[in-house]
Amino acid sequence: MPASYAYLGPEGTFTEVALRTLPEAATRELIPMVSVPATLDAVRSGEVEAAFVPIENSVEGGITTTLDELVAGSPLMIYREVLLSITFALLVRPGTKLSEIKTVTAHPAAQSQIRNWMKINLPDVVWESSASNADGARLVQEGRYDAAFAGEFAAARYGLTALETGIHDAENAQTRFVLVGRPARPAAPTGADKTSVVIWQRDDHPGGLRDLLGEFAVRGVNLMLLQSRPTGQGIGNYCFAIDAEGHISDRKVAEALMGLRRICLKVRYLGSYPRADIGVEDVRAPLPGTSDEEFVTAADWVARCQDGRF
Amino acid sequence: MPASYAYLGPEGTFTEVALRTLPEAATRELIPMVSVPATLDAVRSGEVEAAFVPIENSVEGGITTTLDELVAGSPLMIYREVLLSITFALLVRPGTKLSEIKTVTAHPAAQSQIRNWMKINLPDVVWESSASNADGARLVQEGRYDAAFAGEFAAARYGLTALETGIHDAENAQTRFVLVGRPARPAAPTGADKTSVVIWQRDDHPGGLRDLLGEFAVRGVNLMLLQSRPTGQGIGNYCFAIDAEGHISDRKVAEALMGLRRICLKVRYLGSYPRADIGVEDVRAPLPGTSDEEFVTAADWVARCQDGRF
Amino acid sequence: MPASYAYLGPEGTFTEVALRTLPEAATRELIPMVSVPATLDAVRSGEVEAAFVPIENSVEGGITTTLDELVAGSPLMIYREVLLSITFALLVRPGTKLSEIKTVTAHPAAQSQIRNWMKINLPDVVWESSASNADGARLVQEGRYDAAFAGEFAAARYGLTALETGIHDAENAQTRFVLVGRPARPAAPTGADKTSVVIWQRDDHPGGLRDLLGEFAVRGVNLMLLQSRPTGQGIGNYCFAIDAEGHISDRKVAEALMGLRRICLKVRYLGSYPRADIGVEDVRAPLPGTSDEEFVTAADWVARCQDGRF
Amino acid sequence: MPASYAYLGPEGTFTEVALRTLPEAATRELIPMVSVPATLDAVRSGEVEAAFVPIENSVEGGITTTLDELVAGSPLMIYREVLLSITFALLVRPGTKLSEIKTVTAHPAAQSQIRNWMKINLPDVVWESSASNADGARLVQEGRYDAAFAGEFAAARYGLTALETGIHDAENAQTRFVLVGRPARPAAPTGADKTSVVIWQRDDHPGGLRDLLGEFAVRGVNLMLLQSRPTGQGIGNYCFAIDAEGHISDRKVAEALMGLRRICLKVRYLGSYPRADIGVEDVRAPLPGTSDEEFVTAADWVARCQDGRF
Repeated sequence: MPASYAYLGPEGTFTEVALRTLPEAATRELIPMVSVPATLDAVRSGEVEAAFVPIENSVEGGITTTLDELVAGSPLMIYREVLLSITFALLVRPGTKLSEIKTVTAHPAAQSQIRNWMKINLPDVVWESSASNADGARLVQEGRYDAAFAGEFAAARYGLTALETGIHDAENAQTRFVLVGRPARPAAPTGADKTSVVIWQRDDHPGGLRDLLGEFAVRGVNLMLLQSRPTGQGIGNYCFAIDAEGHISDRKVAEALMGLRRICLKVRYLGSYPRADIGVEDVRAPLPGTSDEEFVTAADWVARCQDGRF
Repeated sequence: MPASYAYLGPEGTFTEVALRTLPEAATRELIPMVSVPATLDAVRSGEVEAAFVPIENSVEGGITTTLDELVAGSPLMIYREVLLSITFALLVRPGTKLSEIKTVTAHPAAQSQIRNWMKINLPDVVWESSASNADGARLVQEGRYDAAFAGEFAAARYGLTALETGIHDAENAQTRFVLVGRPARPAAPTGADKTSVVIWQRDDHPGGLRDLLGEFAVRGVNLMLLQSRPTGQGIGNYCFAIDAEGHISDRKVAEALMGLRRICLKVRYLGSYPRADIGVEDVRAPLPGTSDEEFVTAADWVARCQDGRF
Repeated sequence: MPASYAYLGPEGTFTEVALRTLPEAATRELIPMVSVPATLDAVRSGEVEAAFVPIENSVEGGITTTLDELVAGSPLMIYREVLLSITFALLVRPGTKLSEIKTVTAHPAAQSQIRNWMKINLPDVVWESSASNADGARLVQEGRYDAAFAGEFAAARYGLTALETGIHDAENAQTRFVLVGRPARPAAPTGADKTSVVIWQRDDHPGGLRDLLGEFAVRGVNLMLLQSRPTGQGIGNYCFAIDAEGHISDRKVAEALMGLRRICLKVRYLGSYPRADIGVEDVRAPLPGTSDEEFVTAADWVARCQDGRF
Repeated sequence: MPASYAYLGPEGTFTEVALRTLPEAATRELIPMVSVPATLDAVRSGEVEAAFVPIENSVEGGITTTLDELVAGSPLMIYREVLLSITFALLVRPGTKLSEIKTVTAHPAAQSQIRNWMKINLPDVVWESSASNADGARLVQEGRYDAAFAGEFAAARYGLTALETGIHDAENAQTRFVLVGRPARPAAPTGADKTSVVIWQRDDHPGGLRDLLGEFAVRGVNLMLLQSRPTGQGIGNYCFAIDAEGHISDRKVAEALMGLRRICLKVRYLGSYPRADIGVEDVRAPLPGTSDEEFVTAADWVARCQDGRF
């Protein structure tokens, strides 16, 4: 297996920074790709070991390209997630003053984070979109724009200076990234894990979605994310990407997935992996009756009943 | 194991008739007992192989003595059930005419079945209770009463004549009887089985009982009976005797019982045994996603996900 | 309306004692009746203002005669309930010693409360049933039996002496009695009320009963009692007597009853009345979102949405 | 109120075509705006009577800008929806042949619909994004690109010719548009309506979302859409945009909304309006117990119970 990771490029973006927070990234060749589909195709084709892409942004929502790639095509699995707080720096060529800025650029997604700051600090400046924040920085270096919003880490790469750092409209703005590979045994449970699946409903009736969620609820499994995506069969047809607390090796999660598999038209397993938001010490105690031990005890009791030994 | 069955006596009651519908009864010694507790004590003590007692009447409801004996004490299991339609004969000494009847007797439970018939046909007759319908027939034989309501089969035994047969106020009046033994492997599933349990709630809160029943509902298991019984801890404290469709070897039933075991304070398994009300050909098809095959497929799929082979 | 109450007689039973705990009983003529049906018929026919009958015993369970009378026939309503702790006295003719007792009597229902005490204290004594505990006391007075188990209050009435008082096998043995009248406006809510209904399911399918209970659960209404009774249509056909916390004038209770009425084949309202088990100060706070105030606020909000004023 | 509608411009896009399918559009001044926020701000400020924007695409999913604008800011309401099938024409300057096309342009969202067609028919052509499909057509007119993918209707406006029409990768590709105004009384129910709300959960626990959906399910209200959106409070915090079948004047919908209002942290009503997907004749019959008539009957019954008249 090639010791390389593909990631959504170009170099110098938040994605690269997030990827480098993974210890194993230091020992891989990191290959920037031009798009999310291209990044995931690289892992599907076996060209790289894994792919690293953004999947969700706390301001913008789900990264639909990533979700749709995971939902369709040959199966992939998520092995890790990374949360990165997103704040911007205003990068200029050395010597440029704030008052001299007439044009700024950044990826369109940056707008939701810098809009208010711009209104106050750069009210008369012309905004133009660039293909990525890193590309915006490059265009400033080339003199096409006076300033770019990008991660502070991009300054050094493009020979720019940060006039301002920590720019953000929304507190707690974060992006979630995932490390995706071909199907293999999930990482061992850490005690603070999550499990991702995509489900397609068998039919549509009052209570249908409630009953699907009931497969988790009745076993005390908490949901972290429910994201609908169109199936491509026309308005009104959706599948649901679900993140649930726990690991597929947890009895309650395994039984809930079995339940979904039975009553859904289709279920796609996307992996079980360590949570990036909290550690083991912050995981809530299971509801009464839903610990692994209680599942084992109950299964043992039923087996004894089946044998008449109780 | 002694080749004998105890049953709620005396001889010549509906209970004996019901018991004799079981083919194996022909090869056992049948021992009448004076009460339900005595009948069940005989099996608990190992004195007999099994005990045969009424458990439910379609007019009077649950036979609480039987239920309470099964709920408490050392564990017992139900291995068979028998449904018997209950209609009465009016038994008299040979030669007695309807117009000559001044006094009648029967077990008090018979009243709900013959009350209206008596109003019309024996309006001025004095009713006195007897300890059992068979005992009433015996007292007629002895001359203590002019007539007794009892099963037609009792006439021969006590030298009486049936002036009228098929007496019943309620159409479809039936009594359900169970054959009870010490815990052992349940009978093999027939495809038309039921499973009996008793459950004690862990605590009391809005939705508590709904959630317990949800353990059956979410797996598509239909309930046939839900009977509350006091726990003896004071008004407002109940356990629930439940009959569910299916056999404990059915995946959906087994998983539902595991769920109950996890979230209940206590569960007592009372057995899985053939239904007496309908045959295999009349059993409803399982709801989509709840057949044994679908359970197996789903469990296999989860196992493959856990291994990364899918 | 006649200023009289019928009650399940004879005089000198626990029922009369329970009835006399109601302040209004002091101003009514109290008329003992021979049976529960006779007692309730008296109120149905307008002969008396109300009827007082036992409905539930913490050892024996529901008094099925009472339940079945309330379930069928012309509608009646419950206006009050009384809880009475049940302990027995051993009543003898003055001068009789414990060692001289050869025969004892009481109503059969007393057995579950005195069985163990008898085994220890009167192991060789012959038991015979009497029609009521009061009747047993009378028969002791007449010399037919040596002793009777009855309420201590019966001693004076029948010229007997209590050799022992406070006899009870089960701690917390209580009987619940209800005061029943013809339909009228329920008593005003006290803040610690209960509501009684009987429901008949429309059809039978997995989850059917769970969904009926869901009408209470989804509105945060706690259940106090669920008692199945045969409908008389044959084994396997039941209706359910339900006691729920709260008063029909509580928004959540009213909406739950509406829900039942919509999805059930039939619902019979049996009244809303003060709880005898706890006072207002011990009533649990409603679950979030289920107080009357929140119902009113929500209804007001929907009305404003319907008008486009929000 | 100004007789004008704002819409997401520029002129000559699918949005304008969809808007012109509304009869009332013929009597309004239609004002193209540069962005969804600008379009909705025009109605918020009172500048226009209503705003017309895309909200959902059967290939791309929810239009998050529109959803987020409806979720936040001063309240708006949806009064109408329009479904438009999306197929593209390949527009060129008159005389251009397919083989002469070296560059094509369109809005990025068009890519998911034309990607496969391009691979087969224009494999070596360079793609560049334009700000809108109409803008792409204009740039072809100006000679900047050789061809544009746009609605066929755009040809006439920009003096272009359609080399090919009906281009679409996904069958049934549709975009849903909504006409949005300031809060006012919703349109009268047509019998085939939908109701849109946004809900914020009060807290996060196993079963929490299931219970919210239960408010609809228990009243037989079918869900058409469930779309999560970040609240801006960090990853893991979502609100849900929900489309439910029925009108707020339907009893079951009104009661479900009351339930949500009680148990949610916040509910925002977005309107009730005619469905564009099906007509009255194709609306499913309500589940037993959930028709308006049954709601009224049940409410009337509870009122009579409260008065003791039943």
